[in-house]
Amino acid sequence: MTFQLQVRLGAEFVGTAFLVAAVVGSGIMGEQLAGGNVAIALLANTIATGAALVALILTFGPISGAHLNPAVSLAMGLGKFMPWREVPYYAAAQFAGAILGTLLAHAMFARHWYAFSQHQRSGFPQLISEFVATFGLLCVIWGCLRINSVLAVPVAVGCYITAAYWFTASTSFANPAVTVARCITDSFAGIRPLDVPGFIAAQILGAVGATYWMRCLRSKDAIASLPVFQVPSTASRPPE
Amino acid sequence: MTFQLQVRLGAEFVGTAFLVAAVVGSGIMGEQLAGGNVAIALLANTIATGAALVALILTFGPISGAHLNPAVSLAMGLGKFMPWREVPYYAAAQFAGAILGTLLAHAMFARHWYAFSQHQRSGFPQLISEFVATFGLLCVIWGCLRINSVLAVPVAVGCYITAAYWFTASTSFANPAVTVARCITDSFAGIRPLDVPGFIAAQILGAVGATYWMRCLRSKDAIASLPVFQVPSTASRPPE
Amino acid sequence: MTFQLQVRLGAEFVGTAFLVAAVVGSGIMGEQLAGGNVAIALLANTIATGAALVALILTFGPISGAHLNPAVSLAMGLGKFMPWREVPYYAAAQFAGAILGTLLAHAMFARHWYAFSQHQRSGFPQLISEFVATFGLLCVIWGCLRINSVLAVPVAVGCYITAAYWFTASTSFANPAVTVARCITDSFAGIRPLDVPGFIAAQILGAVGATYWMRCLRSKDAIASLPVFQVPSTASRPPE
Amino acid sequence: MTFQLQVRLGAEFVGTAFLVAAVVGSGIMGEQLAGGNVAIALLANTIATGAALVALILTFGPISGAHLNPAVSLAMGLGKFMPWREVPYYAAAQFAGAILGTLLAHAMFARHWYAFSQHQRSGFPQLISEFVATFGLLCVIWGCLRINSVLAVPVAVGCYITAAYWFTASTSFANPAVTVARCITDSFAGIRPLDVPGFIAAQILGAVGATYWMRCLRSKDAIASLPVFQVPSTASRPPE
Repeated sequence: MTFQLQVRLGAEFVGTAFLVAAVVGSGIMGEQLAGGNVAIALLANTIATGAALVALILTFGPISGAHLNPAVSLAMGLGKFMPWREVPYYAAAQFAGAILGTLLAHAMFARHWYAFSQHQRSGFPQLISEFVATFGLLCVIWGCLRINSVLAVPVAVGCYITAAYWFTASTSFANPAVTVARCITDSFAGIRPLDVPGFIAAQILGAVGATYWMRCLRSKDAIASLPVFQVPSTASRPPE
Repeated sequence: MTFQLQVRLGAEFVGTAFLVAAVVGSGIMGEQLAGGNVAIALLANTIATGAALVALILTFGPISGAHLNPAVSLAMGLGKFMPWREVPYYAAAQFAGAILGTLLAHAMFARHWYAFSQHQRSGFPQLISEFVATFGLLCVIWGCLRINSVLAVPVAVGCYITAAYWFTASTSFANPAVTVARCITDSFAGIRPLDVPGFIAAQILGAVGATYWMRCLRSKDAIASLPVFQVPSTASRPPE
Repeated sequence: MTFQLQVRLGAEFVGTAFLVAAVVGSGIMGEQLAGGNVAIALLANTIATGAALVALILTFGPISGAHLNPAVSLAMGLGKFMPWREVPYYAAAQFAGAILGTLLAHAMFARHWYAFSQHQRSGFPQLISEFVATFGLLCVIWGCLRINSVLAVPVAVGCYITAAYWFTASTSFANPAVTVARCITDSFAGIRPLDVPGFIAAQILGAVGATYWMRCLRSKDAIASLPVFQVPSTASRPPE
Repeated sequence: MTFQLQVRLGAEFVGTAFLVAAVVGSGIMGEQLAGGNVAIALLANTIATGAALVALILTFGPISGAHLNPAVSLAMGLGKFMPWREVPYYAAAQFAGAILGTLLAHAMFARHWYAFSQHQRSGFPQLISEFVATFGLLCVIWGCLRINSVLAVPVAVGCYITAAYWFTASTSFANPAVTVARCITDSFAGIRPLDVPGFIAAQILGAVGATYWMRCLRSKDAIASLPVFQVPSTASRPPE
């Protein structure tokens, strides 16, 4: 079934708000309780983020595709999984929802409603990390869209981000909307506004690279009926 | 298949007892062993609660729907997923089961059979947290009821609560029966009786709000055959 | 498809050996590395045991039913899911496999091949814990056998034991073969031989009680076609 | 659908690179943050590796079978699940990808591009550990290939390795390509080059042993239609 665009944008807005609330909120809680052990704080942050992704993609996937991420919407547009003209609407809903998510986390933890982060995340290793993280994320999404099980994408994306929090030096933002929303919180999950553009550039390169690479896999494929890049729209796939 | 009401109430009673035993018991165990590191105690509490939810919803879902939560039963009544006249029976079974769960946890850990909690959980941020937590929980449930996989609701609810323990300041009670049962344990998971009414009010507002919002999504939908709010009864859905 | 009895016993033997190796081995590793923080050691022990159960039940379930537990085989016999005459064979394979598992763990961690545990686990709260743990385990199994998904039992049992490690005072042995095998290791997961009979009695009571209670749920059921207790044999269920 | 060999080798190459990046990268991150508590570092390493396996096997399984492991490709050849002549190509892609994975992790964490490990992992208990770990891994894979669910192998392998990190003394490398790639990082996950041949020998013995044992289970089976060892090729199985 296909939902009207405004319904899907509502799902992207609320879904991204909950995702960012989970990232920022669990960072605050983890830092408060971990008694200075950063590994334990990051473990809590990781588990909360991975679990939230599984729940949110299951919840909003059947409505809007649950991209919750402008880099994913961009890749879906590139891969002809959604119409190009809808990509900016999706991105706008995701950025707005992401910012609401930070405000919500601050309200729940009694913080001032916003504060620019002073957490420096710069340098070449950080940028490689974001490129690798987003490249991997889009490989996972394109790969799992071939699988005829509604659980494949939510479980795989939740597990991938759980891993990527630890195996990249940047803790794997991999999401331009989440990156922007994390620059207005001066807490565990924050990022200095100055470092945001580099992160977003690396993320877009990673998403485009992975989409191109997965398309190469297909172009060498002997079987013409490969489903990737041929399903008309994620949002219109039946929910099973 | 539909089960008789008393069978379903038996499932809600035992299921909620196990849920609360898991919340309270793992809180006691976590606090005993964590050597003062609250993050580690909460991590244990989180993993036990999330995992228990997956197991219990899979177990009792095919019998009673496995609401285990009066706010969920209320929302199911609002959404016409169960008859209104059954909601008070479900709630009574859940409250009774929840209290049994606390007593069970106290028996297993050799504590006095009950003790009013002195754990203060008050203030506006706590109330916002409970509103957000329960709003999200009902979004997850209404969203995943659209999915034709028996694993969707158990996995999504278990993951959602795992995340919400960390991203809300209240550690996401999101359940009036569990809230009442947690005021009679003076341990890690406790809540001062004085703070219970505010929590329950915020939870009911969140559940009703999410049900209304998910209904809006539907009313704007171009496709008349959307299954949400049209399945006659959760309890009567086949177990696959 | 049905496998010959000796094939199924081979699966029970190897499966139980791996289960006990996971319980005992991860206990040794956790204790060695956790630097005295018992919560962290138990967290490692919990995650290893829960994850091992998911993998082993998926692996051996289609062959032998993957009981890996004499209390489960007893309940399956009671519920007419397997012939009574096979129960002692299953139990013998499970006890032998469990003991091999402890020896294997000792070999891998360069310990003497056996050592009687001095870890006291006695008293009424411990016995209640084992009763509750095994009662819950059999509720989960009987409940999930109704579900037409091969993932339901493995995921639910793995999640249940993950939770029960923390919400019972005994860390939820819930398995007579594992209990015996844990009395010959003087490490984190050990139990004093003196305390074994009480644990086994509580486990059998819990398993029989849950089987009786789930049967009651059925006898009050208006629908005659309820599948529980009517499937001829777990072992002969198709593997999907 | 069957993919051309070079497409499948591309999937094995990239998949193994991500797997090793996850193992090595999360080891570096865990060690940096854990403040000297090795259990917490290993917990992070475990969760990242297990979650990465679930995501990567779901992603690349429908393309190449997602062996990501020469011992698995060898066993698939032995069991006639893939043509013998493809095994060396798979192994070459996996070794090359694994080495890239280490380099990638070093780039992300600003380390010198390679450094031979000085982490001694020798002695009989380590070799038994690798034998047991790989024997179990192949049991899990052969067992779960019988199951008609695309989630069975990814979930079971991810869970198995999560457990095996803790229940073996060697933290369960269980993969010759990963073992070689881990000897060129002087970090948490490293292994002294001198110890690599013993590990690989034990892994191959374990993989061959499990394949032989699972074949025995079949040869004693009364039912001729058992699917194991009869499906023509993993890579050609439909992705559901």
